[in-house]
Amino acid sequence: MDYIGIGIIGLGTVGKDLVNLLNENNCIIEKRDKISIKIVQILVADVKKKRSDLDDYTKSIITDNQSEFFNNKKINIIVELMGGLTKAYDYIVKAIKLNKHVVTANKDLIASKGVELIKLAKSNKVALEFEASVCGGIPIINMLKTSYAGNKIKIIYGILNGTTNYILSLMESNDLSFEDALIKAQNEGYAEKNPTNDINGLDATSKIAILSSIAFNTNVPMESIKYEGIKGISREDILYAKELGYRIKLLGVAKDLEDYIKIQVNPVLIPKSHPLANIDGVYNAVYLEGNGFDKSMIYGLGAGGLATASSVLGDIINIIRKKDYNKFIWSNSYRNVKINDSKEIYSNYYIRMHIKDITGALSIITGIFGNHEVGIFSVNQKRQLGDSLEVVIVTHKVNEINMEYALILVNESKATTKVCSVIKVEDNI
Amino acid sequence: MDYIGIGIIGLGTVGKDLVNLLNENNCIIEKRDKISIKIVQILVADVKKKRSDLDDYTKSIITDNQSEFFNNKKINIIVELMGGLTKAYDYIVKAIKLNKHVVTANKDLIASKGVELIKLAKSNKVALEFEASVCGGIPIINMLKTSYAGNKIKIIYGILNGTTNYILSLMESNDLSFEDALIKAQNEGYAEKNPTNDINGLDATSKIAILSSIAFNTNVPMESIKYEGIKGISREDILYAKELGYRIKLLGVAKDLEDYIKIQVNPVLIPKSHPLANIDGVYNAVYLEGNGFDKSMIYGLGAGGLATASSVLGDIINIIRKKDYNKFIWSNSYRNVKINDSKEIYSNYYIRMHIKDITGALSIITGIFGNHEVGIFSVNQKRQLGDSLEVVIVTHKVNEINMEYALILVNESKATTKVCSVIKVEDNI
Repeated sequence: MDYIGIGIIGLGTVGKDLVNLLNENNCIIEKRDKISIKIVQILVADVKKKRSDLDDYTKSIITDNQSEFFNNKKINIIVELMGGLTKAYDYIVKAIKLNKHVVTANKDLIASKGVELIKLAKSNKVALEFEASVCGGIPIINMLKTSYAGNKIKIIYGILNGTTNYILSLMESNDLSFEDALIKAQNEGYAEKNPTNDINGLDATSKIAILSSIAFNTNVPMESIKYEGIKGISREDILYAKELGYRIKLLGVAKDLEDYIKIQVNPVLIPKSHPLANIDGVYNAVYLEGNGFDKSMIYGLGAGGLATASSVLGDIINIIRKKDYNKFIWSNSYRNVKINDSKEIYSNYYIRMHIKDITGALSIITGIFGNHEVGIFSVNQKRQLGDSLEVVIVTHKVNEINMEYALILVNESKATTKVCSVIKVEDNI
Repeated sequence: MDYIGIGIIGLGTVGKDLVNLLNENNCIIEKRDKISIKIVQILVADVKKKRSDLDDYTKSIITDNQSEFFNNKKINIIVELMGGLTKAYDYIVKAIKLNKHVVTANKDLIASKGVELIKLAKSNKVALEFEASVCGGIPIINMLKTSYAGNKIKIIYGILNGTTNYILSLMESNDLSFEDALIKAQNEGYAEKNPTNDINGLDATSKIAILSSIAFNTNVPMESIKYEGIKGISREDILYAKELGYRIKLLGVAKDLEDYIKIQVNPVLIPKSHPLANIDGVYNAVYLEGNGFDKSMIYGLGAGGLATASSVLGDIINIIRKKDYNKFIWSNSYRNVKINDSKEIYSNYYIRMHIKDITGALSIITGIFGNHEVGIFSVNQKRQLGDSLEVVIVTHKVNEINMEYALILVNESKATTKVCSVIKVEDNI
């Protein structure tokens, strides 16, 4: 049987699981597609590293000889699974220039260099596929590129980071503080030792940048996206949100408002009845609205070796099957629109604060909001805390700049003990 | 700009909405794909039918002249949206033999003639695409054919019929009987005047036949699938299921058990925590398990003109973009496995029945079950009804044939007033 030769760069979790998945499923692919997929060579940094869990064939094809690897005529498709930026970029450029097809799971690289690499692949008439770069096992990129290509996509809401979703789920189910939930998640292997990029929202930001670029036919630079993580979310926020009929999720939100695109990553309150509100644990989910299919949501594993390998293998099979690559455009030459014009951004807010337990305190606070055109939808007093009262305020849709100014004054007001939390509410989700 | 010519057969809801969607989004497609999609001609049965809602161009390209339509050199892709079996089959065969690509939304035709038509398209080197034939706006076929092509698919659970899901949701939310919910759904336009094929499960059966054929790399004839509708579901069942922590859904279930494939369409109890349990109203959803991506679910609109047109347009764009068609196999030449070997099918059951309020009645009933190796997990007495007691029995996993025999004897027993409902429980969902 004919075979297609694969060269893999990097043999970490995803690399190993790609080997495993292919070993397990190659017989299905051979019978169905009448072609075999064969891993020809694997490029690693250190050939001497102990890899006792590999089969003999896989051990025999490991190399650290770059020039041998890149010039191997039997390799048709190079799969980059090493991660990182500079070196991975150099390798991918090299592969493309040698007219090899490339599949990558490298989110950071695609978010920062996607446009450039796709252009290079186009001009070299090879494929560059990157399904695994966003939400491991969820084929959201392929959906946007193919099945939904006849739609104008209007909205993307995504739970794009499994670690933070797991922590938020733990905080609710086990009644834990953020800090305790993080430690538990780390002990269970669901959060890294240095979880900064997950916790602060940066990881989700790369992902929403990639998704919105494809969905909105433009180029969204990561740097244009304001992001906020989940560090500031407390047990009380989760409880009170629940009482109000919401759950708190770290959401990537991208909306095409025709004149400009609004993109943010931050914790938001989502009505409990919304399908996204019920995505728990390490799962990821992406909810879309388009002018044809209307509403749609896909959920699945966002990370993990096998799930990521599944998307990588899907990309490989699709490259083998089709002859025309990179037919879709990702550049801002097609569409150059404003991204995040904050003068025009409106949101509903949930505010938890402690105010002084003195006559007129609430009137002072609501007065400040009123002066900045921040309309208040509801105020609920939660409990007495010494000489303060804890209140939860939910606003109408207000201009974000006005909100920022109002909050400065509220913070400074003599009626305020402390503003504890300010979280956006996605009511029209 | 170059254009690809489309010929549409049938101008009902989907046909009209395809015209509308293309009018609205063609500018996006042109800018992105550097090609225009132009509807060249529309074949209808009766050109004289009043169609006042059409624009002048569309009115001008309607014809009932078959030979003119099929021989129109400007038509590259024929889109069949007329529905039905014999005539649609003849038209599609004709189109393929004239080397036109074909896109169809015809579920019944694909379920019964899919293998044959794909073979014909392959030998004529044209595409036959049918995303819209299953779950209108949900690109489940493309997911199975492309992104998940590297997986061994093990399980498909689908809420595949919007009408029955709407009726079940209404029964729960408005506390209605099946009959009253059906009338309400009909009045609101969510159920047809003759809803037989929706209500009895036949519509969902065509869909699970198509999905399982693709997912399991074989051919699943519709006739091999046992199906049951929702007519027998009562208000009480929905209430008691809820008390037990479940919701009742009409589910297409297909499992690849290696030696044989188990496929059924019937109402089942699903644990409330499962994502499928929360899909309400007219929405459809498909939940999958594979050996790579693990678990995944996609939900969206299963019907409606625009959602279906969205999938048709996705197929058209994909045909335009790629040169290699029908690369995947749908036949039983690859894999010829047993389908529904009922001797080996095991299920959990929920049974609601009225038993005589006499000493020993329950012991007689449980004795019958015990004699047929039907293990009982729980028995709950619900209420007194005259001289009977209503009880809900939940079983362990039992052989379905044993269950059938046991139920015959239970029905005949002097301890039984009436067996009201027998519903399968999907506990491992």
